[in-house]
Amino acid sequence: MAYINVPDGVPGIRSLVMFRPETGKPLYELAQVLLRGPSPLSPADRELIAAYVSHRNECVFCRNSHAAAARCLYGDGKGIVDELLKDSDPGRLSEKMQALLRLAGKVQRGGNQVTPDDITAAHAAGATDVDIHDTVLIAAAFSMFNRYVDGLASYTPANESEYDEMGRRMSQNGYVLPSRPTHSTNQ
Amino acid sequence: MAYINVPDGVPGIRSLVMFRPETGKPLYELAQVLLRGPSPLSPADRELIAAYVSHRNECVFCRNSHAAAARCLYGDGKGIVDELLKDSDPGRLSEKMQALLRLAGKVQRGGNQVTPDDITAAHAAGATDVDIHDTVLIAAAFSMFNRYVDGLASYTPANESEYDEMGRRMSQNGYVLPSRPTHSTNQ
Repeated sequence: MAYINVPDGVPGIRSLVMFRPETGKPLYELAQVLLRGPSPLSPADRELIAAYVSHRNECVFCRNSHAAAARCLYGDGKGIVDELLKDSDPGRLSEKMQALLRLAGKVQRGGNQVTPDDITAAHAAGATDVDIHDTVLIAAAFSMFNRYVDGLASYTPANESEYDEMGRRMSQNGYVLPSRPTHSTNQ
Repeated sequence: MAYINVPDGVPGIRSLVMFRPETGKPLYELAQVLLRGPSPLSPADRELIAAYVSHRNECVFCRNSHAAAARCLYGDGKGIVDELLKDSDPGRLSEKMQALLRLAGKVQRGGNQVTPDDITAAHAAGATDVDIHDTVLIAAAFSMFNRYVDGLASYTPANESEYDEMGRRMSQNGYVLPSRPTHSTNQ
């Protein structure tokens, strides 16, 4: 059960933004522009970075839901997702994505973990400044979403098939704020 | 020098949102509603939580700027900020704020670090569900902002007086997106 009085049975961050729609609105807008807006990185690659950071933060809800979205978006290449999350060699990924995932892993540990060599390696693998920016911000944003979801113990479904359905919805519709506010800030 | 080609001499997150205003907009909207919108926590208390988390993440820019904003907002009680950031006993704070800061410190380490006992202690000290929600989200959001600012090595002024000026502006105007976009996503 969640630590605060959020709607029953609503999984993950959806229950939290229904509890507090004022902060939910910019959180969903951030997810939408960061994972679906114009970027040199495909939505599939951005979902993979989100799933990877969530995996490293041991946030089961975010890992499973964004991994499911990445599988839908990659289509035939969906085996990439499972290989990466099993901590096996991501050798099927491009050099650029390998360098960006190493960078995301540094950001997950802490902003000060990133070194000039990490940036040089990403540039050498073909990453632009916008690739690097978007990777760092996705890794930073999931360091937030993961803490928000787990720090309030929001509902994490155990059934894998629920994530498949979530992943389909996320890949098709993106991030749309759920309605049904359930509290006032006076409580 | 920052790791990507942001405007010269613009400190911290401002340079990053000028580079990428698409993601800057929801980031500033989140900061505004989370730190200045309606909440049972005062803006001063919310800035203190932000400064505390940034301090623990060793993010000098965010720590110094949000500490300066908290000093302005507390007015006569501004010694509280310096005491807390020197890791001394925050005995001058209310029981509720002490419990919420302990909770924020757990979230800074990771969402799964929070235990039911942390929530019980916060409730026992008078915190409502909204106090707890806002504390967890502030701590999570600064786990993002800190990683964003340091992960891209944005400009961190060394001169303390620059933070005093920033703190005054943040306490008076809140969080307003700077203009002057400097790139297109095609680069």
